[in-house]
Amino acid sequence: MSKKVKIGNLTIGGGNPIAIQSMATFQIKKVERAIAECNKLNQIGCDIMRFSVTDIEDARSFGLVKKGTDMPLVADIHFDYKLALESIKGGADKIRINPGNIGSEQGVKQVALAVKSAAIPVRIGSNTGSIEKDFLEKYGKNEISLGESALKQVAIMEKYGVDNLVISVKASDVPLAIKAYEYVAKKTDYPLHVGVTEAGTEYSGVIKNAIGIGALLVKGIGDTIRVSLSADPEREVIAAKSILSALNLKNDCPKLIACPTCGRCEWDCMSFAKKTEEYLQRFSKPIKVAVMGCVVNGPGEAKDADLGVAGGKSGVVIFSKGQILKTVSYDQLEQTFFAEVDKCLR
Amino acid sequence: MSKKVKIGNLTIGGGNPIAIQSMATFQIKKVERAIAECNKLNQIGCDIMRFSVTDIEDARSFGLVKKGTDMPLVADIHFDYKLALESIKGGADKIRINPGNIGSEQGVKQVALAVKSAAIPVRIGSNTGSIEKDFLEKYGKNEISLGESALKQVAIMEKYGVDNLVISVKASDVPLAIKAYEYVAKKTDYPLHVGVTEAGTEYSGVIKNAIGIGALLVKGIGDTIRVSLSADPEREVIAAKSILSALNLKNDCPKLIACPTCGRCEWDCMSFAKKTEEYLQRFSKPIKVAVMGCVVNGPGEAKDADLGVAGGKSGVVIFSKGQILKTVSYDQLEQTFFAEVDKCLR
Repeated sequence: MSKKVKIGNLTIGGGNPIAIQSMATFQIKKVERAIAECNKLNQIGCDIMRFSVTDIEDARSFGLVKKGTDMPLVADIHFDYKLALESIKGGADKIRINPGNIGSEQGVKQVALAVKSAAIPVRIGSNTGSIEKDFLEKYGKNEISLGESALKQVAIMEKYGVDNLVISVKASDVPLAIKAYEYVAKKTDYPLHVGVTEAGTEYSGVIKNAIGIGALLVKGIGDTIRVSLSADPEREVIAAKSILSALNLKNDCPKLIACPTCGRCEWDCMSFAKKTEEYLQRFSKPIKVAVMGCVVNGPGEAKDADLGVAGGKSGVVIFSKGQILKTVSYDQLEQTFFAEVDKCLR
Repeated sequence: MSKKVKIGNLTIGGGNPIAIQSMATFQIKKVERAIAECNKLNQIGCDIMRFSVTDIEDARSFGLVKKGTDMPLVADIHFDYKLALESIKGGADKIRINPGNIGSEQGVKQVALAVKSAAIPVRIGSNTGSIEKDFLEKYGKNEISLGESALKQVAIMEKYGVDNLVISVKASDVPLAIKAYEYVAKKTDYPLHVGVTEAGTEYSGVIKNAIGIGALLVKGIGDTIRVSLSADPEREVIAAKSILSALNLKNDCPKLIACPTCGRCEWDCMSFAKKTEEYLQRFSKPIKVAVMGCVVNGPGEAKDADLGVAGGKSGVVIFSKGQILKTVSYDQLEQTFFAEVDKCLR
């Protein structure tokens, strides 16, 4: 089991629920917008929010944003360790930085002292674009060079007494990402930040992340996830929720089971399933709802569901926890069924 | 490695490429529509098409549809073994039937003789709605009862000398589906038809299938896949293609790498990534294209790509196989970049 690491008021690792994170597409110095974004995403299910720090004003804005949101905030630093120091002073709950990028030994030491004194964690790691030259030459571009690059960064931080770490090893190639996380999971017990980087547009990005994150979580690898998408952060959070829900790792989401439909289906099951999914997304309570195409398979499968519907020639059968509740005509279906959903969630 | 099984002109198992299948949402007796659907889906990347056989007219239509398409056709039979016999006579390339559903020993024997004489395979299996009562009582609803239900069907067919089999063990619960396939993969070397059943609407269905199919294929489990969705079969094929492509198991698809974008991004990278993806979908040739948000990370990652673009303040840098090709202004970007794509694919 991974070690526990505290990020603001949230603890990841050590068997805690997998935390969902996302990253802002604008600068944190836009304080009001940042607060609104954090609160919106938090309500949908986001647990941790990251902002890239581009200048001193960004670094100093963490405290201001924290006045308006409870969500833990991560400062993403590239190259300039002084921005890390300012972000820590500014109130960031976690720093994302690679010691190898800082340059001077003196800079690394200062950052290490600052995070220790602020008692905040650091996320360090590698990605296929930042594999250490030595490892690249020795191993080629694979899980070993990617993993060892991250572990070298870990060693640097440990040298300065920092053991409050989260690790990532990101690749856009899904099988490589999976192997790299498996590699570091074997070699360390720090919590892992899991994701597939530069995953593409929302469509293929969701698929790549679902495979990569899913294959790892199934094996118990991963403590916090980010679904990187070229899309609004809201879409990242919804995708992350859906991945965790599909793996039964997030149990406050409604679940919809819908029939793939075949030649036996005699009603517009697809449209009704989509409508039902949209209806269910308003709720953050656990309920299992089935929308089935036909009476042949429907009742057998819908038995599992808290609420189910199976279409027939002239009407629809509604089930509740394995028992037939009522038969309704198609024009009464939506109203009757959603009323049953409401009753079930009350 | 799994055994090889021939379905029409296609061989699955034994290390052959993973075949993509889908299922029609209408009856095969609509012959012209069936031919058009097969040819459309085949062009997108579908390898095998299944039709549910609801009556004798459906059963007799396989030969007629095969006159208009090269795609192997599967007859999906429920309960009535006479429809299986007619479908085999009618020219189906594969039968999907559960011997346990046929009822009479005599019926099973007749189907077995017919598939042996036609030299076509049979897909048999279980799903969570059809677990054998004995196994359900003994083991509960888990991977063992699901797996053993399928293996019992296998034993029945083998008893009558049929060893031309494909197996499925479908569940809508993703972790259960993964465990059930792992269970049967250990116990048999017949090729496996992998998928998550009743997976929901397109959005959550794609996620559940990506996780389930992905986690199995990563382990080398699975010979043919179907992404069951409450959506048009075209969407099933595109999702299946995307899953295989993400795992580097289908190499004739273009690949797009897009930056998730952050505060450093100063151009509309998301829209351009989406536009690029849509442009690339016309091609069925292997090319790796990167659309990156900023010059900080862009060039490092885009180096991997056959063609890459990284946005800056006043213009965009285009890379080709690691080398800077040119810098263009934003208003020239689309035209110039897609022309480079065309050149690359020529």
